[in-house]
This record gives sequence, C-alpha cells and structure tokens, in this order.
Amino acid sequence: MRDLAHSRAFYVETLGMLVSNEDPDTLYLRGVEEAAHHSLVLKRSVQTGCERLGFRVFTEEDLDLLSAHFVERGLPLSWVEAPFQSRTLHVTDEIGVPLEFCASMKVMERAINRFDQHTGACPLRLDHMQVLTPAVERACAIYGKMGFRTSEYIADEGTDALRAVFMQRKGNPHDIVFMRNDGPRLHHVAFTCPEAHHLLHLCDLLAAAGFGRSVEWGPGRHFGPGYARFVYLRDPDGHRVEFFNNHYQTIDIEDEPLRWVPPSKGEASRWGRLSPPSWREEATAFV
Amino acid sequence: MRDLAHSRAFYVETLGMLVSNEDPDTLYLRGVEEAAHHSLVLKRSVQTGCERLGFRVFTEEDLDLLSAHFVERGLPLSWVEAPFQSRTLHVTDEIGVPLEFCASMKVMERAINRFDQHTGACPLRLDHMQVLTPAVERACAIYGKMGFRTSEYIADEGTDALRAVFMQRKGNPHDIVFMRNDGPRLHHVAFTCPEAHHLLHLCDLLAAAGFGRSVEWGPGRHFGPGYARFVYLRDPDGHRVEFFNNHYQTIDIEDEPLRWVPPSKGEASRWGRLSPPSWREEATAFV
Amino acid sequence: MRDLAHSRAFYVETLGMLVSNEDPDTLYLRGVEEAAHHSLVLKRSVQTGCERLGFRVFTEEDLDLLSAHFVERGLPLSWVEAPFQSRTLHVTDEIGVPLEFCASMKVMERAINRFDQHTGACPLRLDHMQVLTPAVERACAIYGKMGFRTSEYIADEGTDALRAVFMQRKGNPHDIVFMRNDGPRLHHVAFTCPEAHHLLHLCDLLAAAGFGRSVEWGPGRHFGPGYARFVYLRDPDGHRVEFFNNHYQTIDIEDEPLRWVPPSKGEASRWGRLSPPSWREEATAFV
Amino acid sequence: MRDLAHSRAFYVETLGMLVSNEDPDTLYLRGVEEAAHHSLVLKRSVQTGCERLGFRVFTEEDLDLLSAHFVERGLPLSWVEAPFQSRTLHVTDEIGVPLEFCASMKVMERAINRFDQHTGACPLRLDHMQVLTPAVERACAIYGKMGFRTSEYIADEGTDALRAVFMQRKGNPHDIVFMRNDGPRLHHVAFTCPEAHHLLHLCDLLAAAGFGRSVEWGPGRHFGPGYARFVYLRDPDGHRVEFFNNHYQTIDIEDEPLRWVPPSKGEASRWGRLSPPSWREEATAFV
Repeated sequence: MRDLAHSRAFYVETLGMLVSNEDPDTLYLRGVEEAAHHSLVLKRSVQTGCERLGFRVFTEEDLDLLSAHFVERGLPLSWVEAPFQSRTLHVTDEIGVPLEFCASMKVMERAINRFDQHTGACPLRLDHMQVLTPAVERACAIYGKMGFRTSEYIADEGTDALRAVFMQRKGNPHDIVFMRNDGPRLHHVAFTCPEAHHLLHLCDLLAAAGFGRSVEWGPGRHFGPGYARFVYLRDPDGHRVEFFNNHYQTIDIEDEPLRWVPPSKGEASRWGRLSPPSWREEATAFV
Repeated sequence: MRDLAHSRAFYVETLGMLVSNEDPDTLYLRGVEEAAHHSLVLKRSVQTGCERLGFRVFTEEDLDLLSAHFVERGLPLSWVEAPFQSRTLHVTDEIGVPLEFCASMKVMERAINRFDQHTGACPLRLDHMQVLTPAVERACAIYGKMGFRTSEYIADEGTDALRAVFMQRKGNPHDIVFMRNDGPRLHHVAFTCPEAHHLLHLCDLLAAAGFGRSVEWGPGRHFGPGYARFVYLRDPDGHRVEFFNNHYQTIDIEDEPLRWVPPSKGEASRWGRLSPPSWREEATAFV
Repeated sequence: MRDLAHSRAFYVETLGMLVSNEDPDTLYLRGVEEAAHHSLVLKRSVQTGCERLGFRVFTEEDLDLLSAHFVERGLPLSWVEAPFQSRTLHVTDEIGVPLEFCASMKVMERAINRFDQHTGACPLRLDHMQVLTPAVERACAIYGKMGFRTSEYIADEGTDALRAVFMQRKGNPHDIVFMRNDGPRLHHVAFTCPEAHHLLHLCDLLAAAGFGRSVEWGPGRHFGPGYARFVYLRDPDGHRVEFFNNHYQTIDIEDEPLRWVPPSKGEASRWGRLSPPSWREEATAFV
Repeated sequence: MRDLAHSRAFYVETLGMLVSNEDPDTLYLRGVEEAAHHSLVLKRSVQTGCERLGFRVFTEEDLDLLSAHFVERGLPLSWVEAPFQSRTLHVTDEIGVPLEFCASMKVMERAINRFDQHTGACPLRLDHMQVLTPAVERACAIYGKMGFRTSEYIADEGTDALRAVFMQRKGNPHDIVFMRNDGPRLHHVAFTCPEAHHLLHLCDLLAAAGFGRSVEWGPGRHFGPGYARFVYLRDPDGHRVEFFNNHYQTIDIEDEPLRWVPPSKGEASRWGRLSPPSWREEATAFV
C-alpha cells in the first residue's frame, strides 16, 4: 500500500474492518465474526501488489501432509515465521500463485455480538479469493488434488474448455475461483456481510468519505455461480474487494458441480448492467 | 398499451400493484396503501402514449376555484365523466401537458395490513411524475400559481436558468418534476415502496418473470434532489416507472428551496454509474 | 432530566439524534431529516416531567388566528420568547395539556444525505405524541376545532364511547393520539426511522451501551391504528419514546375515519405478545 | 400430524417451504437452497410426536464406520429402506434419542435463484435441532465421540455442570443442541433464512393466515450461544420451529469452546422479554 493511512481510512474507518494489530508498516485486519487474528494484512510498500494468498489447514499434521505433497510435486518450499501465526509454509503453486499455509493463529475476541463495533458494511469474514490465469483447467486439477471440490464452473460450448471454476473446502460455493485471463493475477478478495442493506449503506458511506469513485460495479446480483448480491470496490491502490451476501451451503457428495452457460441462461434471467471493462480486464499483480 | 395482458403480467403479477377494476380494455391499479380507487390507469391502444396526468384536489370548492383559475388564464377546459371519480375537469396547461383533476374517488380497502397481498416491490402509493419540457421556468411559474411549492431545483451556473425543478403539495420533496429537454413528454411516474430490500427483490422477480431487461438504471442512490434510493424500469411499452424509498418530509415555510449544482457537489458525493443515455433522452409522448 | 449527560448518552450516542445546540442545562435535538432546529428539548431538572407539547403552524397569520381561537374559548394564553423559535404562544388546553405554538424556527442542515451521521436508529423526524386522558371525546372535539382530522379510532362496542382517537394534520395517520386513562399524561413521543432493520439494530446498540432494559415492548407490529412496526423504549428518566416505521399517507376527504374494534379484528390478525402492564399504565406527568 | 392439510397450509403456504414430494400420508419438504430431497418429513398420524432425527454422513464408508461404532457401543441398529435416501441406518442413542443416518439423497433443483419461489420466510435450509435431556454431559460425550465439536456451552457456576451444549460438524455454531430438562424430548428444529426482514414479514404473514398465535417468542436476539436473531413458532400440532438468521462460521481448532454464564453476562447485554414459560418447559415427545 503506497499510503497506509489512506488504506486505513478505506478499510477500517469506512468498510468497518477491525484492527487486530498495527505498526507503522503493517495493518492486521479481521472481520467482525472472525476469531482468527487476521484475514487481510496490508503492508506499506513503494510498489503495490499482492504478496501471497493464505489458507488455513486444520491441524499441524495436515500441514506436514501438505508439505510432503508439495515436495512430491517438486515445488520448492520454505518454512517461515509469520507474526501471530503458527509455523507457516510458503510455496508457489504450478500456475505461479504464491501461497502460504498455517494451522493456527492467535485467537481474538469474536466481535459478532459487539454491536457497537459493527460499522460500515459490517464485514463478517473473508470468504473467497479470485485468481486470473490462462490455465484454468490446470489450476482446477492442482487444487482438486489439494482437496478443494468444484461447486460450479463455466465451460465453453462445444469444446467444454473451462472458462472459470469455483472451488471450496468450507461448505459454501467457493473459497477460491480461477477465471481465464492473463495471469496469474489476483482479481479480488471477497468478504461476506450480513444483509443487503449493508451493501447499500456501504456505498453511501464510501461517498460520504470521498471514496464514491471506488464503487466499480453494483450493488447487483450475480446470475452465474453463487447467485450472490455483490458490490465490487477498488481500494486506494486499485486492488479489488468484493462485499456480498447470501451464499448457499454445499456439502453433500451427490450434489454434482453445476455447469453454467452464461450466454443462454444468463441472458434469460439477468437484470442490471454488465460488468464494466475494468472489472473484466484489470487485476492485481503478484509481487 | 399494445398488449394489456402483458402489461398486467408486468404491473400486477410482477410489480405487485393491486387491481381495483378491470375490463377487456382497461386496468385500474392502485398501490397497497392507497384507499383511492386508482393511481394508474392502463388502456388498450394501438398507439402507445400518455393520455393525461391526474391530480386530486381537496374539495369540490377547490375544483371550482381551479376551474375559474384556468378560465382566467384563457385555457379551454371541459368537464367529463370519468369512471370511479367525482366530476372531473380536463385542461391542457400552457406548456402542453394534458391534465385532469377531481375531488374524490371511490374508496377501496387500504391493503396496508393485508400482508398476504404484499408482493413484488410492495408498491405503496403513487408519489410523483416527471415531465420533460424545454420551458422549465415557465412550468415552475404556472404550477407555483396552482399552489405547488418548490423543494429543490437545479440551475445553470452563471445564468441561474432552471434545468430542473421539484415541486410539491403533499409535504414530501416532489409531486411533479420538470426537467429541461424536448417536450412536453412524460419521463416517468414513481411509486414509493417500504424498504430497500423491496427494490432488490423486485429486480430478481423481474428477471425470474422474463422482464430482466426492463431494469434501466439502478438500484442506486440519487445524489441530487430527493436523495432517494431508486430503480428505474421500462414497462413492456417502454414507459418508465420508478420505484424508490426514503423521501423526506418538507412542510415548513422557512425551509428555502435547495439549489443543487450537480457538477461540483454531485461529483464529490456520488457513487455508482451515471444514468444510461436512454434515461437521459427517451420518454413517453402525450397523445 | 435528572442527569443530562446520561440522557445525552441515551438520545444522542445511542439513539442517534443530532444535537442542534447544547448548553449545561439544555439539549436541543432533531432527527436526521429535520431542517427545523429542534423537535425534542431536554432540560436539566430535579423533578422529571413534560413541560409542554409543541406544534408548528404554517404562517404568522395562522398563529394570530389560533390565538384568537383560544381567546374566544376563554383560555389564558401568553406570548413568550423561546430560543431558536419565532414568537411563541403558550396555552393550556381544556383537558389540561400545556401547549406551545410557533410559525418558524432556525433552519439547520437537513442531514438526510449525511450518511456518516446516520447512527443508532437513524431517527428521521418527530412523528407524533400520545396523550392519556379520561376525556378522549372532549379532546377529539377540541383538536378537531383546531383543524386536526381523525384517521382512526377505537370505540367501545355498544356505547360507541371513544377509547382512543388518532388525529392528524400532516397527511399520515397521526400527529396526536388521545387514549383513555388517568391524565392528562404524556404516554410517548414517536420518531420514525427508515427501515425495520434500524429498529432491530437499535435494540442491539441499546444492549451494548447498557440500556438493554430500556426496551419496554417490541420490536413488534401494531395491529390497531397505523399498523406500524414499533419498538417502545423508556429513557433514563422513565419517559417513553417510540421508534417505528412504515406509516401510510392519508389526505383525501372521502376516506372516512376507520373504526377499530380490537377484540374481534385484533385477535384474528395479531401476532406477538401483548403490551406489558407498564406500557398500559405508566406515563409522564405534565409539570 | 393430525391434519396434514393444515400442516401444509402452515409449512408450505405460509412458511414458504418447498414440497419435494407428497402423498396422502406424507409431505417431504426442503428449504429453497437445499439440493437434498428433504430436510423435514411430515407424516399423518393419530398421535403427534417426533419419529427420528436424521443426519447425513459424507460417504458410504463413513456410514459403515458409524455402524461399527454403534455395534461396539452395544446399541441395537437396523438398516432400513427410506424413500429418496440411500441405505439408511436406524439406531437409538444412549440417552434415548431415535436417530437415522444416510450418505446420499435424491438431488433436487436448488431453488436459490428461483426468486419467484421465495415466499414466506424464505427458509433456506435446516440448520440445527435442539434436544432436551437430563443427561447433557453424557450427550456431549456421546456426540463428541461421533465427531461433533462443541462451539459454546452453558455451565452452572461453581460445579461446572453442563446446562446446555452446542455442537457442530458443518462449521457454524450448532447442528445439535442439548439442554437440561426432562427428556429426551425434541425442543425445536431450526431453519435459517436470509435477512431479518424475512422474520418480521413471516410474523405478518402468519397473522394474515390465521396463524398469529403460533408466534411463541420473538422476533428477538439470542444473547447466549449463537447470537442469532430468532422467532420461535409452534406448528398446528404444537411442535416448535425456529427461524433465525446470522450465525457465524467456526472451523479453526484453536478456537476454544465459549463458556457462557447467563446470569451475569446475559443480564448486562440483553434486551427484550425473557422466553415465555411454554418455551422453557414444553417440547415434543419422541414416539
């Protein structure tokens, strides 16, 4: 982040994220229902970009299994000390996305019933991340081997080539999304919030705080995978953040991935304006 | 309306307006809190357009005073029998808008607590109408003499020439709006609904009913006069209908009309996309 | 108010009312859409009670007409200087309610689009006041002569004696309500807020601020006159404040007052628990 | 259910549950986001009660492991054919609760984006069940061995004896709750719905349909475990159904079960009225 104070005004004072820790160079943020210490870390830097996507594993044993999995695949990995996290594994996956895994974090007070701290969009928790890559099918295979399951996907008619794949571990539509485009680039991180009025109020608050131009698309409804009501923002450095509500639960194994053909079903059922060109083309580089 | 059944599917089955009466050629509609028999009348016709804007006066004496007012101004008028209305005055105002006035209507059950009848956007009542005219200042003077008061207006910088004027009798920001453009044409009629989630749900229902393309602009927030949350629709004949919520009360005489300068204040405070060209240029002819 | 700082914590910091002016002994409050300087004035005092109910008239001429009306009725009146108000008339009506009238007030910024100032329940404006009196029919006649119209009423079966009457000037169900009980006493003042989620969020905020016990009844739905969704609070001195949303518009003269028979219609249509005994019996004395 | 048509009017026409299948003696219901064929089965019967609580397991292998687990514990079990389910295991647990498990069901269309089918409270999915038992600690141990994890609990001060325990598998606060009371009895089943306005609208719809008296408690806020906004209903046979929204996600292993001491923390933070005696004492027998 080029101006961490400006980022703080955006993420904390306007969006309503909680500060778990901060120093002159770093902001550790979490949503109001998160007990984990941080779900978004902002660092002061000259060059803007995304350092790494992080995932939690359930136990330390799972972390060892994952490490062995990467070694077997020939991927260089390193163990690092990351503040407020247990031992942390760094690796870059085969499509070039820098990743980080740990099994536990410092526990913070879950502020879900601290209603006086619910401001802005009342961001509840990190829900998912979307990555652009020309290699969607390869990404799908790689993350499938790691244990992610596909909930929905978009495929080209005729060839069945994957245009986008929505994968999950936690029982709702997606933890990670891969969409076909130049990459790897980070398209957006998404936080869920309680009700649709929070999305509308957030837009009003952004305008009141001078961030009105950060509203890139929405509030609207996704008619493709997930069906969420969304609003996409661009933060002061241009990174994209989605706020949405109302995903569905998907756990059962007999529930097959849903194929989605946007031009036919989409046209019949959608309302509102298409995504702007910036949403379709611009994204954050991994640094 | 070229296809009254299709209009019924739009206004009644999807938007949720109540039918007070219908015959093969006419639909008399009202909102769920209206005791007046109709606030919108749809007629079968080959050529589509708006016949007439209607206003209520308080008493029969007021109607006589109004008639005298028009005679004094040299405007031809006629008294007509209109179904479900007391004696009805027809006149075309000096800027060419066909008007109709009456003092009372057949009383219907107010369905405000008939929750099983609240569907669609839960349209509560007709709130205002917007007219395009090249003669905004003349319209403002004419309607001011009829008793309308200006709540807000948009004026050109430097010349102070009126670009738009928002006028009211009932104590909220506007009953009638005049906006500078070719005309006279009817830009839209607006119904108010209870809460913002009704606007969002309406869009989903429109898409489910195959009317997704009728959503022209929004849901969004007006940053100019009224500050309403809105969604603009185009009905099957292309007529524009606004649904909105959250206007304010304005009664007191010391509360001066608010001048609004969109380019400066507007840019600083707004969010979301600008109105589409269709919203700025297209409108319904008076027939 | 026995402890003005505590009252401020309740009305301003928790309910979200705006402070138009304050000194060590007085708080002038308004709702976020009010341009009038104040709709609620809190004064430091040893003995708690309500000094006076205030109404606005449209013009100074109306104030003179009203003064003549009271003189004709033999009521002693006085003209006073009240801060931030034009010349102000004091009178006590025939059922013992101390009243105050003025035609204009200092104009404040309407904060309706200052979304960063919308906190708590987002109180929009003062809507109505409810008075307990054994003389409901007399009150109805007196206020009817002042120009108030009855929208709804509750009458005893058989005798048709009035148990409650809801009267209005501003085009929605009530500005003043008289209910049969010992009196005159002030039962509550009511502020309207935008949406039902504000009522729910307010209760959570009250609990977070240590005012959880101030929630006396609701959130619920009135099935009698008005049909509002409500929550009734008791302020730190025990005065009752209602927050509600979703009243209806009522202007037209052919729309007859609605008679309401609670035991039959009420039983069939209501949900939720009955009002607690405190709501039915306790009220604020006029001092 | 003594009168299945009446139950259908309650669950389907008013609450908004979807019918996956029905015959003269049985109704198979699901929520609008459920792809599983049924989450609630209503059967015509002379004597009213709950036959069995059902859980899903992930795979057929898990079902075999579970069967072995029960055999090892000396519990008689049986394999049955249940309509629309894969092979189904019946067992009664050590505290006397009749259970059923299967690994897959017939897949139905997920109606999450069929907005025209979202009526009533828009019930999304079965979330949890609450059981009354004098043996809360034993239940906690038994279900812990089956793989459930405790998210929150209520313990007596001093002795630490469990008064209630909230256990989960799917990553939100509870799938099953045990509360100390005479039992085993089924206290309620709970469905989640999208937003708080659905809870309020549901109450209005219940009243409109003549089910107003079914609203037993709420809408309100739980200040103990889960923090949900709730409304508790009694169906036409007296069985209790909860609708709520806004639970939190809880997955991470370092996040310790939260101990809850109602009298102290509860008193400080709560608003609204206490549960009625019926809620605290009445429940459904297992048959």
